Amino acid sequence: MHASDRRYVITFGCPDRTGIVARVSSFLAEVGGWIVEAAYHTDPDTGWFFTRQEVRADSIPFDVEELRARFAGVARSLGSETDWRIDDTGERRRAVILVSKEGHCLYDLLGRVAAGELDADVCAVIGNHENLGDITRAHGIPFHHVPFPTGDVEGAEGKAAAFEQVRKLVDEHDPHAVVLARFMQVLPPELCAAWAGRALNIHHSFLPSFVGARPYHQAHKRGVKLVGATCHYVTADLDAGPIIEQDVIRVDHGDSVRDMVRKGRDIEKVTLARGLRWHLENRVLVHGNRTVVF
Amino acid sequence: MHASDRRYVITFGCPDRTGIVARVSSFLAEVGGWIVEAAYHTDPDTGWFFTRQEVRADSIPFDVEELRARFAGVARSLGSETDWRIDDTGERRRAVILVSKEGHCLYDLLGRVAAGELDADVCAVIGNHENLGDITRAHGIPFHHVPFPTGDVEGAEGKAAAFEQVRKLVDEHDPHAVVLARFMQVLPPELCAAWAGRALNIHHSFLPSFVGARPYHQAHKRGVKLVGATCHYVTADLDAGPIIEQDVIRVDHGDSVRDMVRKGRDIEKVTLARGLRWHLENRVLVHGNRTVVF
Amino acid sequence: MHASDRRYVITFGCPDRTGIVARVSSFLAEVGGWIVEAAYHTDPDTGWFFTRQEVRADSIPFDVEELRARFAGVARSLGSETDWRIDDTGERRRAVILVSKEGHCLYDLLGRVAAGELDADVCAVIGNHENLGDITRAHGIPFHHVPFPTGDVEGAEGKAAAFEQVRKLVDEHDPHAVVLARFMQVLPPELCAAWAGRALNIHHSFLPSFVGARPYHQAHKRGVKLVGATCHYVTADLDAGPIIEQDVIRVDHGDSVRDMVRKGRDIEKVTLARGLRWHLENRVLVHGNRTVVF
Amino acid sequence: MHASDRRYVITFGCPDRTGIVARVSSFLAEVGGWIVEAAYHTDPDTGWFFTRQEVRADSIPFDVEELRARFAGVARSLGSETDWRIDDTGERRRAVILVSKEGHCLYDLLGRVAAGELDADVCAVIGNHENLGDITRAHGIPFHHVPFPTGDVEGAEGKAAAFEQVRKLVDEHDPHAVVLARFMQVLPPELCAAWAGRALNIHHSFLPSFVGARPYHQAHKRGVKLVGATCHYVTADLDAGPIIEQDVIRVDHGDSVRDMVRKGRDIEKVTLARGLRWHLENRVLVHGNRTVVF
Repeated sequence: MHASDRRYVITFGCPDRTGIVARVSSFLAEVGGWIVEAAYHTDPDTGWFFTRQEVRADSIPFDVEELRARFAGVARSLGSETDWRIDDTGERRRAVILVSKEGHCLYDLLGRVAAGELDADVCAVIGNHENLGDITRAHGIPFHHVPFPTGDVEGAEGKAAAFEQVRKLVDEHDPHAVVLARFMQVLPPELCAAWAGRALNIHHSFLPSFVGARPYHQAHKRGVKLVGATCHYVTADLDAGPIIEQDVIRVDHGDSVRDMVRKGRDIEKVTLARGLRWHLENRVLVHGNRTVVF
Repeated sequence: MHASDRRYVITFGCPDRTGIVARVSSFLAEVGGWIVEAAYHTDPDTGWFFTRQEVRADSIPFDVEELRARFAGVARSLGSETDWRIDDTGERRRAVILVSKEGHCLYDLLGRVAAGELDADVCAVIGNHENLGDITRAHGIPFHHVPFPTGDVEGAEGKAAAFEQVRKLVDEHDPHAVVLARFMQVLPPELCAAWAGRALNIHHSFLPSFVGARPYHQAHKRGVKLVGATCHYVTADLDAGPIIEQDVIRVDHGDSVRDMVRKGRDIEKVTLARGLRWHLENRVLVHGNRTVVF
Repeated sequence: MHASDRRYVITFGCPDRTGIVARVSSFLAEVGGWIVEAAYHTDPDTGWFFTRQEVRADSIPFDVEELRARFAGVARSLGSETDWRIDDTGERRRAVILVSKEGHCLYDLLGRVAAGELDADVCAVIGNHENLGDITRAHGIPFHHVPFPTGDVEGAEGKAAAFEQVRKLVDEHDPHAVVLARFMQVLPPELCAAWAGRALNIHHSFLPSFVGARPYHQAHKRGVKLVGATCHYVTADLDAGPIIEQDVIRVDHGDSVRDMVRKGRDIEKVTLARGLRWHLENRVLVHGNRTVVF
Repeated sequence: MHASDRRYVITFGCPDRTGIVARVSSFLAEVGGWIVEAAYHTDPDTGWFFTRQEVRADSIPFDVEELRARFAGVARSLGSETDWRIDDTGERRRAVILVSKEGHCLYDLLGRVAAGELDADVCAVIGNHENLGDITRAHGIPFHHVPFPTGDVEGAEGKAAAFEQVRKLVDEHDPHAVVLARFMQVLPPELCAAWAGRALNIHHSFLPSFVGARPYHQAHKRGVKLVGATCHYVTADLDAGPIIEQDVIRVDHGDSVRDMVRKGRDIEKVTLARGLRWHLENRVLVHGNRTVVF
């Protein structure tokens, strides 16, 4: 990374009132901060104000820790103790990817990283099948096979143990993103809590339509004319977390479920890739069950 | 209409088997039929075969009644007594439009008819408010005001009477299409039955998401990133009839419910207009709760 | 308009440097300005900074003239004498629409105004044919018929006279927008200059493809798989002015030129309507031959 | 492949006249052919008729050679000696991919093949840089590095030699498709001729806009609001061959050339993948400089 490309990314939320922009931008102006990108939003329903600012790191005469310390006072004066963060793009983003058998999203993400489109380190890929190990390793990334029980007997206990193993493998990298790239296993509530705001799922329907299993089969049965995909944060409510991104693709009567699956995959891939990029760039601010995407 | 533009439109469905296309096309070849457009589909789930054929009327040496009489034999030989029809585009299509207060779909349809884009006669517009009367009459089309009771007392009885009046006003035109252009009243089951396959509704969401009232409010609350519209045949199940066409438009966190309503209207208009056009051109074949759109 | 809905809309551009946002927002904070919407952009190629701010009028303790007077100092201090304006949404926007024979864009705009979607007064419609007079008058809007010569002899002189008449009819309303809604006549350079930044055209192709006459014919001949439309500011270079908005729609081998025309119209309508709305809301800032759309 | 999934794919073109469909479908019915998919089109400008039929191989009581021999008579009787072919999907499709340095299209295609979405064998990848060798070999596919001269001196001669080498490497596989996946070298006319109808290119613009080099730079300069990609057959006219598929993605003033490149890649990938799939399934019929895509 060129020194002039390094940024401090400030995201901040507080109750709306007059003068917030002036307060934040004056603070930045005083420390010499060169704003490269700035976005604002106020939600009229909740009266909450949101902003995201990208500042050139080399325009600030001290380090990010000092910037955080000083900004804390600004945030406090605007009534926000905790709803802010400042990240340094000089620290590379880390992601861990969870997969099952279907590889299209994994192939896509690995290709993007290799092509330099997605500026992140994939620290590990964890799969409950072995089949995606080779391609992962070909990209120089460790692959961990964690089998999940499928039968009923001892299923619950075995699943808990498997998730415990997944948790350890994920947490040792302290990743900025835990990506469920068609993982197909429902995360237990304690993992949803532990990875809150960091675990992203791609659901293969245009939510809230077709929650749960086999959404393309549901879509085919209902006779819809578009199928979609939804990238959302994982919460304890299945497929009900804050939506980051959605997209759709046209289908028609000639498309079998299999055709829908194939066409839908193209949408799953780009929807997940966009959602993950925005998340890693701190563009996604969550408020209640909705997101602001700057 | 130029004589050479007049068509006989054959739509036909039967159980799939070898030789159907040959049987139908040989019949047409024998009578000299010049096929201008032909489409086929077999649904693998139900084993049902569908076709739509447009034949130049001036290539057939007898009239449409005779064509129907002869085709009946072909249909019977293929195991289909009733699942077919032959329409003559020389007979103009008739539509009756039902509206409430919001006029965007009505303005759009009237504009399309006036501009020659939608080749149909709008025989009447029926509204439960008066406000869309002037524009309707400016287009030279009769407008009928049928007030619907809004209160609870005598509501049911008053509604039944109002629907009875609507039914009479509609049925005297024997229309090919009864268009619920944001009519906002739920058709009673007997009207759904009477107008089965002819009553089209535009619902302001991407069904099956957000069935029922105030879908844009529901969409806003869920935080979706696209809003949509669905044109479907009306059945006794609310918003659950066979889908003819759907489309979506992007929204973001900056869009209030009011913005969603405004953006969504553009999608409602084109989705309804496309669905209506296809219906009037006999392009929509219903099978169970799904449609084939040729 | 509710008093609390009235806004002062500030648009401003200047050479980029540190502290602009702080300077502008501090100025607004000092006068009590409640920012409802704010957007910023810096063009890295030209080093130019752009902003648009919407402030609640009732939060400012003086009138718009005084606000302009005070803001002039801020602008000057940031190196921008002229590249800014402040508009009061309490003053209704005025538009004049120029048409030829094809009415789809006019029907659409009139419908939007009537339905309350486009918050503007259409002061007049001017057509070089008579056929769109009735619908215009049905909306309570004056229609002026200004015939344009079509033959060669005396063509140039007659055209100049016709344009002079159009100019007078337009200028008496001092409109915020002069909308060429498929006007089909090339504006002379002096009118392009007189209406610079206010004259919007809808071109029926995805520019820069298919400049000039009969773009759908050109598109059909080239065998493209999408047709489009472009809303742009009119300049003396034919179809080469700054682009405000573009959109496309899918076509295929089955679409004749006539089908492309019909499908394309839906895109022309929404593209023009969006471009016009953004223009009237002062969302479009022109810089060189490109636009910033906030 | 399941035996019942094996198809004979007939594509056929001839001068339009009455009875073609009957002739073809009767022929198929006589030999017991079970038509799985059928499409027809007549181009009104040229009076040319096109059809594509998929027949279950196990419904025909003889082999594909015999089917070809018999169908030749049908074709001849309809005035078409050469404008037809019958392919057996039991014979796997073969593709050779040509690349330069940018790998996004290659990653995408290899991922699709690995995920079973694109039912073809990639026999070889040929690159004028080495950097995509590892990923290719990780997929078990041979990679050939053929350097191209970049300087002026000896450039022409060196290029001719390099192309000769490419030709040999390609032709030894007799591939159904030669895919220029961002190859960035202009094919010499003799290779265009040798691979006519088999060489597919992905151009990173919505043609005919921005022909030639650096289309994203051209697009950025013009200030367009959408960028696109075009998959077309390669002909001796640069970027002017028959278009198979196009798509676009929205950009705005905030997007630098680099952002456009990144967003455009997603469109390049899906557009090439769709075009290649349709080509390999014999869905693309070329007529003059346009395509029929069934």
